[in-house]
Amino acid sequence: MSQTEITEITAEPGKQEIVLRHTFDAPRELVFATATDPDLLPDWWGPDRLSTTVDVMDLRPGGYWRLVHHDTDGNGFAFHGVHHDITAPERVVRTFEFEGAPGHVSLETAVFEDVDGKTRLTTTSVYQSVEDRDAVLASGMEGGARQTMERLDVLVRKART
Amino acid sequence: MSQTEITEITAEPGKQEIVLRHTFDAPRELVFATATDPDLLPDWWGPDRLSTTVDVMDLRPGGYWRLVHHDTDGNGFAFHGVHHDITAPERVVRTFEFEGAPGHVSLETAVFEDVDGKTRLTTTSVYQSVEDRDAVLASGMEGGARQTMERLDVLVRKART
Repeated sequence: MSQTEITEITAEPGKQEIVLRHTFDAPRELVFATATDPDLLPDWWGPDRLSTTVDVMDLRPGGYWRLVHHDTDGNGFAFHGVHHDITAPERVVRTFEFEGAPGHVSLETAVFEDVDGKTRLTTTSVYQSVEDRDAVLASGMEGGARQTMERLDVLVRKART
Repeated sequence: MSQTEITEITAEPGKQEIVLRHTFDAPRELVFATATDPDLLPDWWGPDRLSTTVDVMDLRPGGYWRLVHHDTDGNGFAFHGVHHDITAPERVVRTFEFEGAPGHVSLETAVFEDVDGKTRLTTTSVYQSVEDRDAVLASGMEGGARQTMERLDVLVRKART
């Protein structure tokens, strides 16, 4: 098995966005289907050290979603939001709120592009302020995001075969 | 009748947000109730030269909303999104998409604060990119936003008496 691609994370100083980019060696339909399958979410979403359960995942405009991370001490960390747009196999736009920081919401746009038979996934998160963005970076999301993309990459490869 | 307050609009170069601030000479509960009443929306939302109809206004998390502007030539301009958070009388967080530029979504946060018996309304719109933000500014939203706030101010004064 060849090495998974590197995840590129961009967060320019003074801006209120984080851009995550990862290229999957698989067709767009397959990557989109894998990334949006609620049954598969626990297998890839979040940092390696936490397990994930899907509380709600209503994949329609207006549909609510809620995911919960669990650590080995029994603590839970929940995230929720609503879907604005689901256009298979191109785009998912949703709001995102960590319940540990209530009232701080971001808008997350995932765009799936076909690049010579591979799929480039670009996820742009825009925050209500630079301070909110910087707080997320300070929380160490970067490591978790890389692990998330690597695990999704492994799942996509498995689905491809 | 005293003059309405000036609406302050901030859009710093290179940033991807527009901040709108207006202070109403009325209690927060009244301003929030007026601003979120679907029956009143046609009386204040949008630029003076357009009329507005409410297609859908579901004021719940996940609730869909859609408003249509009409000009005198019979053209319609529609906007829609979903509500992420409605916390009376404090906060409304929703997504926002102009159907004339599909796929370009912003996150709009309206915060109602009590300031010595008056109400300061701060609406922050964050866009998926600086380019999207600049396109909205170039479309002349500023004039329409001022007219919108002025008409809401008049309505709030009327509701207060």
